[in-house]
Amino acid sequence: MVRVGILGATGAVGQRLIQLLEPHDDFEIAALTASESSAGKSYREAAKWRVDSPIPESVAGMDVVATDPDAVGSDVDLIFSSLPSSVGEAVEPAFVEAGYVVSSNSSNSRMAADVPLVIPEVNADHLDLIEVQRDERGWDGALVKNPNCSTITFVPTLAALVDWDIETVHVATLQAVSGAGYDGVTSMEIIDNAIPHIGGEAEKLETESRKLLGGFDGAEVDLNSMAVSASCNRIPTLDGHLENVWVETAEELTPEEAADAMAGYPSLDLPSSPDPLIHVFDEPDRPQPRLDRTLGNGMAVAAGGIETTPSGLQYNCLSHNTIRGAAGASVLNGELLLERGYV
Amino acid sequence: MVRVGILGATGAVGQRLIQLLEPHDDFEIAALTASESSAGKSYREAAKWRVDSPIPESVAGMDVVATDPDAVGSDVDLIFSSLPSSVGEAVEPAFVEAGYVVSSNSSNSRMAADVPLVIPEVNADHLDLIEVQRDERGWDGALVKNPNCSTITFVPTLAALVDWDIETVHVATLQAVSGAGYDGVTSMEIIDNAIPHIGGEAEKLETESRKLLGGFDGAEVDLNSMAVSASCNRIPTLDGHLENVWVETAEELTPEEAADAMAGYPSLDLPSSPDPLIHVFDEPDRPQPRLDRTLGNGMAVAAGGIETTPSGLQYNCLSHNTIRGAAGASVLNGELLLERGYV
Amino acid sequence: MVRVGILGATGAVGQRLIQLLEPHDDFEIAALTASESSAGKSYREAAKWRVDSPIPESVAGMDVVATDPDAVGSDVDLIFSSLPSSVGEAVEPAFVEAGYVVSSNSSNSRMAADVPLVIPEVNADHLDLIEVQRDERGWDGALVKNPNCSTITFVPTLAALVDWDIETVHVATLQAVSGAGYDGVTSMEIIDNAIPHIGGEAEKLETESRKLLGGFDGAEVDLNSMAVSASCNRIPTLDGHLENVWVETAEELTPEEAADAMAGYPSLDLPSSPDPLIHVFDEPDRPQPRLDRTLGNGMAVAAGGIETTPSGLQYNCLSHNTIRGAAGASVLNGELLLERGYV
Amino acid sequence: MVRVGILGATGAVGQRLIQLLEPHDDFEIAALTASESSAGKSYREAAKWRVDSPIPESVAGMDVVATDPDAVGSDVDLIFSSLPSSVGEAVEPAFVEAGYVVSSNSSNSRMAADVPLVIPEVNADHLDLIEVQRDERGWDGALVKNPNCSTITFVPTLAALVDWDIETVHVATLQAVSGAGYDGVTSMEIIDNAIPHIGGEAEKLETESRKLLGGFDGAEVDLNSMAVSASCNRIPTLDGHLENVWVETAEELTPEEAADAMAGYPSLDLPSSPDPLIHVFDEPDRPQPRLDRTLGNGMAVAAGGIETTPSGLQYNCLSHNTIRGAAGASVLNGELLLERGYV
Repeated sequence: MVRVGILGATGAVGQRLIQLLEPHDDFEIAALTASESSAGKSYREAAKWRVDSPIPESVAGMDVVATDPDAVGSDVDLIFSSLPSSVGEAVEPAFVEAGYVVSSNSSNSRMAADVPLVIPEVNADHLDLIEVQRDERGWDGALVKNPNCSTITFVPTLAALVDWDIETVHVATLQAVSGAGYDGVTSMEIIDNAIPHIGGEAEKLETESRKLLGGFDGAEVDLNSMAVSASCNRIPTLDGHLENVWVETAEELTPEEAADAMAGYPSLDLPSSPDPLIHVFDEPDRPQPRLDRTLGNGMAVAAGGIETTPSGLQYNCLSHNTIRGAAGASVLNGELLLERGYV
Repeated sequence: MVRVGILGATGAVGQRLIQLLEPHDDFEIAALTASESSAGKSYREAAKWRVDSPIPESVAGMDVVATDPDAVGSDVDLIFSSLPSSVGEAVEPAFVEAGYVVSSNSSNSRMAADVPLVIPEVNADHLDLIEVQRDERGWDGALVKNPNCSTITFVPTLAALVDWDIETVHVATLQAVSGAGYDGVTSMEIIDNAIPHIGGEAEKLETESRKLLGGFDGAEVDLNSMAVSASCNRIPTLDGHLENVWVETAEELTPEEAADAMAGYPSLDLPSSPDPLIHVFDEPDRPQPRLDRTLGNGMAVAAGGIETTPSGLQYNCLSHNTIRGAAGASVLNGELLLERGYV
Repeated sequence: MVRVGILGATGAVGQRLIQLLEPHDDFEIAALTASESSAGKSYREAAKWRVDSPIPESVAGMDVVATDPDAVGSDVDLIFSSLPSSVGEAVEPAFVEAGYVVSSNSSNSRMAADVPLVIPEVNADHLDLIEVQRDERGWDGALVKNPNCSTITFVPTLAALVDWDIETVHVATLQAVSGAGYDGVTSMEIIDNAIPHIGGEAEKLETESRKLLGGFDGAEVDLNSMAVSASCNRIPTLDGHLENVWVETAEELTPEEAADAMAGYPSLDLPSSPDPLIHVFDEPDRPQPRLDRTLGNGMAVAAGGIETTPSGLQYNCLSHNTIRGAAGASVLNGELLLERGYV
Repeated sequence: MVRVGILGATGAVGQRLIQLLEPHDDFEIAALTASESSAGKSYREAAKWRVDSPIPESVAGMDVVATDPDAVGSDVDLIFSSLPSSVGEAVEPAFVEAGYVVSSNSSNSRMAADVPLVIPEVNADHLDLIEVQRDERGWDGALVKNPNCSTITFVPTLAALVDWDIETVHVATLQAVSGAGYDGVTSMEIIDNAIPHIGGEAEKLETESRKLLGGFDGAEVDLNSMAVSASCNRIPTLDGHLENVWVETAEELTPEEAADAMAGYPSLDLPSSPDPLIHVFDEPDRPQPRLDRTLGNGMAVAAGGIETTPSGLQYNCLSHNTIRGAAGASVLNGELLLERGYV
């Protein structure tokens, strides 16, 4: 069993990490960190547990420690990080310098040239950017990132279409409130409403997608040349990001070809990888967040409504934003790190 | 006072028509129709009143009659129609043949070559298609349509940008449940959910927008050449359609120019026309349905978040779907018909 | 394996029955019925599947038959019924007369003197009313009812308190929309709203609770003498009925005694019985529908906020209305019928 | 025109106060206060305006000052306070000592023996407790309180029934999220959920109601002897508190008598008093928050579903919690203070 630590264990993604890691066959939760005000408390006291399964007894009694390499201790083999990005920016390098391998969901450094940004089923080969990272920074550990929840939702579907040479992508997102954390969106803001702006989100979709689908020659990632334009909306949904995507390709692409490419896109043998990776619906009104977010235990991507429009192919896709889009994405990267011998 | 009748007076749009027409300075409600099962009842009995102002006393006691020219009687000068489209298809021609002028919100015949499809502030000149209609069909009355609620939301903003020569438009809609009528969307379908498909809706945005912005030479409307691709979503919001729009133009267009063009787009002097027609927000997170749907008494369009993206200009717009997008649109067309002497 | 049939298999409760029965160790789904218009279709075609787990493959391809004993066939040993009560009233006696044992969730006949109304953990002994029923009606089969979803939520907590001699009960319910079936509550009715009335519901709580807690001497059930007053509200929640209860008892009852009595109330060894039956929270703001409705796989009851008020003891309770409150309740009665040898 | 100041002008109730006071015929907004961090900013900058009417231009440009008598200045005749109770506790006495008359919505000191707690239509005579207050504290100004929003909702209906000698009251509340302020309830807490506890709320209903309906002999208020037991729930509704009430009276009371007493309960001639005060519905499923909260411009109380139960009379009532229940209640007390010559 690999002993793992969770940085930022009391937040929304931290709680999902615990929910996923506690029953995991390869990982054993050995350390939980949170802000100074929580350090020293039991996890039960420190966390306002809000996931829809009871808090695991083995975790409830653990002591929360400060988010600091010394506090975590040396008998931890792998770190999962779900810190606010400003905290991650400051703290994650300290952990890697201290020799830890960190699988991080935090948004800091995702676009750094020597930091692998990975969705295992899409660009597992980018993981070897760790070698470059170690060379350049003199680190023993490693820092690996998963993309933003809204990026993870549509990139697998684009990955299935790259053979047709994607030129432009337009994407409108309908994002669930859990993506902003437990306190991110007040009820007065969102009931009977929608908010057509999420700070910094559109840029994440536009840049992270091009890195994920970029080529890697062993030295650097060459951003994919497609032009991506995103518009992001918050809607009154708890979990599950839904996205409307238009794709224009250099090669002619029919809805049937796109559906086949998505449905047949290969998954991996990692413990948390779903099979199939992309669930393609024939019904035009699917996927829907409440009905389809738990496909593949929340790790699948769903697509549907594929059709030709006056400006390219249009379809909709969905993933569970705090599982496939956050906690599950980090766990999956941890599984990949283990399989590839980095842990 | 012009005596008016309302076809389909008990439905969601019918109730809004009553709410708008009852206090109107130029119109007097003289007849209310509904399906056979309601005919003969008082309006209070026939309608399940659900608008957020009390049912007007003068209307509550009126008798509902069948949706039939004979039942409506000859002392009505103008008809507002909010019938289901299948019923409208069958019944509206009978009213026009009987000499009535009909301002209709129903979706049937909107794209017919000799039926004016009008947003007064955008293409009032199309109204003269009535002459062609009368010539061709031998009608004394007239049939005028307003567009679909989702079309009305974005077309005024496009109208402000036509000088830059629009080539392509992508639009994703986040539509309120009231757009489907009182019984259109069940609570089990939409709470904690979103539905990425509304039957026939995308095509309405794609075709009606080109007719509204098309040229009219007195004989026929020449569809605008822009390519419009729409994706329509239902979300858990009561009123107010929000839309994400991308526009690519032949002439270079900056966000500042677009904002100025929208904010300065002229309104009309009709009683229900708002001033300004388009309210432009500087705040990137506006407009929002709950906060902005009642601007201009529900007759304004709001826009915001205007910015340049890798694929053209992007912005968001909003209107109140059952006022500006339906009942108010029909009333406004009625006011235009009156001003132009057709009533 | 007991071969079971489901009457009304395409509705909201019918779908939950399939979800619970398909993986059941003792029951095998052998027949599915629906209205005439669905008969002859595959279940996949006939049902608009809306449960949050995929439709079981073994069920999807089954043919739906008419709700008629002849159509169901003789190789079915046990019937689960989730028919609209008007249909149940007409059809269930025909099934029992034809020799079927019927575990029914439909509201018809629940208060009939010779029909056992049973929550196994509360009044399993009432099941023997079947003997009276057979004597009086000359039936070979049997008709057993589970109570209404809102009744099931609070009765187990009252059962734990009967030793203190309950005199009066006030109960206010906050009920989820799924209790009205998929089409029961429109989104326009309930978003940003609450409805303080559910037709016939208060009476069900007031009478069914007294039958469930009544004495049974082998011949008839003597209604419990407590006075129950209910007020029922529909709120914008998908699943899980929450109830505020006040209890006045002849014997003095402290919150601690009540909590102990509830937490220690015995469950049964039936496959679907949860352990514990009643989950008692210390936190005053629990139970909550979204967080606690799936306790015990949706078969537990949760209670909390127990305290003394100027007029007796007050507490809140919760159960999952379509599992413990409907489909799961019928399955549990089926398990009891099997254990007691009636099947 | 009476020059008024608003303490805590940027909060949810503060914004409603501005919305009500800006067009008021007798009051002129002369000072706005907020926390230190907002002092010195324009109101437009300091407030995140979230009311559904645009921010009044005359107010937007005003400077916000610190919540301090010196900062407010001497040319203000009347103060409206909507401070958090801990701040109100500290600051309100300083204002009164400095000679200001304060109409406060804050919960501190509501039950103090020499502080009038007033709903003008119910107990305007209690206002003269100001004389006692001035005597005891040596104040020139005065401190007057309105009750909590959930108290205001049901007390007018009880006031209509006091002639029947109320002995016990049970009340379950279904409260809107706006009652907790803009940031009080997160969306993750309340979408698809309900919370059966609001800290301190039940006690407010139980005690404030008895003070409001208590006798006043010119020296002190004698609490009404009725026993009130409350249970408070937060539900996913934006505005409007709905309450289920059971009343047991010493004198026999029929539903018809109760309906007549409520419908005929007298209102006042104050500018913001609605007529009627209590709107009584015959329909059993009314009042409903979304449909009925704006009756009487949000200042009316609605009641319905009146019926006899095994334990007394049961009915439901509703009021708009941030208008009649908070900002409007304070304005109304201000109007009463003006009419009675205290301002």
